[in-house]
Amino acid sequence: MIEGGRFITLEGGEGTGKSTLIAGLSDALQDRGQNVIVTREPGGTKLAEEVRALALNPPAGETWSPLSHALLMNTARDDHLNKLIRPAFERGDWVLCDRFADSTRAYQSIDGQDIETLLKIERAVVGETRPDLTLILDGAPEDLAERRRARGTQDVFEQKDLDFHTKVREAFLEIAEQEPDRCAVIDALQTPEQVLAAALTEIDSRLGDL
Amino acid sequence: MIEGGRFITLEGGEGTGKSTLIAGLSDALQDRGQNVIVTREPGGTKLAEEVRALALNPPAGETWSPLSHALLMNTARDDHLNKLIRPAFERGDWVLCDRFADSTRAYQSIDGQDIETLLKIERAVVGETRPDLTLILDGAPEDLAERRRARGTQDVFEQKDLDFHTKVREAFLEIAEQEPDRCAVIDALQTPEQVLAAALTEIDSRLGDL
Repeated sequence: MIEGGRFITLEGGEGTGKSTLIAGLSDALQDRGQNVIVTREPGGTKLAEEVRALALNPPAGETWSPLSHALLMNTARDDHLNKLIRPAFERGDWVLCDRFADSTRAYQSIDGQDIETLLKIERAVVGETRPDLTLILDGAPEDLAERRRARGTQDVFEQKDLDFHTKVREAFLEIAEQEPDRCAVIDALQTPEQVLAAALTEIDSRLGDL
Repeated sequence: MIEGGRFITLEGGEGTGKSTLIAGLSDALQDRGQNVIVTREPGGTKLAEEVRALALNPPAGETWSPLSHALLMNTARDDHLNKLIRPAFERGDWVLCDRFADSTRAYQSIDGQDIETLLKIERAVVGETRPDLTLILDGAPEDLAERRRARGTQDVFEQKDLDFHTKVREAFLEIAEQEPDRCAVIDALQTPEQVLAAALTEIDSRLGDL
């Protein structure tokens, strides 16, 4: 990575406040004079958005296997890395990405895909472009459910139930335990201002001397 | 695999006569009383055909990396295996498939993707459903070029040049050398009747006692 560039990913279940945090972080980091790129997965580039549409909205009556879904997510990721994330590094920009490889690990392992296969595919695609820091927004699904209902948006994950959201939470916490140097867990039930302050504290303490 | 089922793949460059051979084999095997499923890759199922369309015809001005292309081919393959090829085995049918994993190995390695990554992804998707026999149709690109021009069909591979077709030929011959128990090379410059006879001889000698 070129001096100056940073790659920060935000992870967590639906309704944990990732969109709000990423907007706040973008403003705060730009106020500090950084060039900031805000992006998301699956998506972020034209081809990745095409893959996203096919993955999330298959033709009526058709379903993807967990492995097919993981391969599609990694196809989108490969394009996103090649055309947006890696070029941003070369310019020394900071990249804030709403979901990244940990989401594929979490959701497709819950759907039954073995983690070893998921990791092999992830490593082939991500290569050396691992996030410098992953902020995991965490909260009890029961407490987050009201916020989800208030949002009113729906996708294939949001239609699932509380048990599912509990598994998602546990999957992200497991990743945080396995990779503590990369991952910071932030209490998503704080106010947006407190969440932003906690995220900036993690950024300063973990990335200050990169 | 269930007793009775066979999985035969046909490989080779454009214009080597795979479509003609697969039609002839289907007729010959059905005449022997086998239930035969004829299919192709990328494609063969509804979702795989969707992925094929996106892979072969990206939006104007966009291109897939070799790795993205390989991931898409394997997404289509996973769906194809799950919904068509493996269920056919369970019924004891013979499956004849026009292109399979060797095509991804050949074309994406020529495009610059390392073979080890390609094999990792292939193994994750194919699992135990390896072909019982792969018939590789082989001929000098110079001699096959006239047949390609006569066909008049075009796709991303057919627009490329003689040097490319030579590399494709070499890639398939390398696979045949590495896996001689699975692969049989057939001279594609014989008449269609001779090619069919050669293929049936390979099937009888190699699969007779499965």
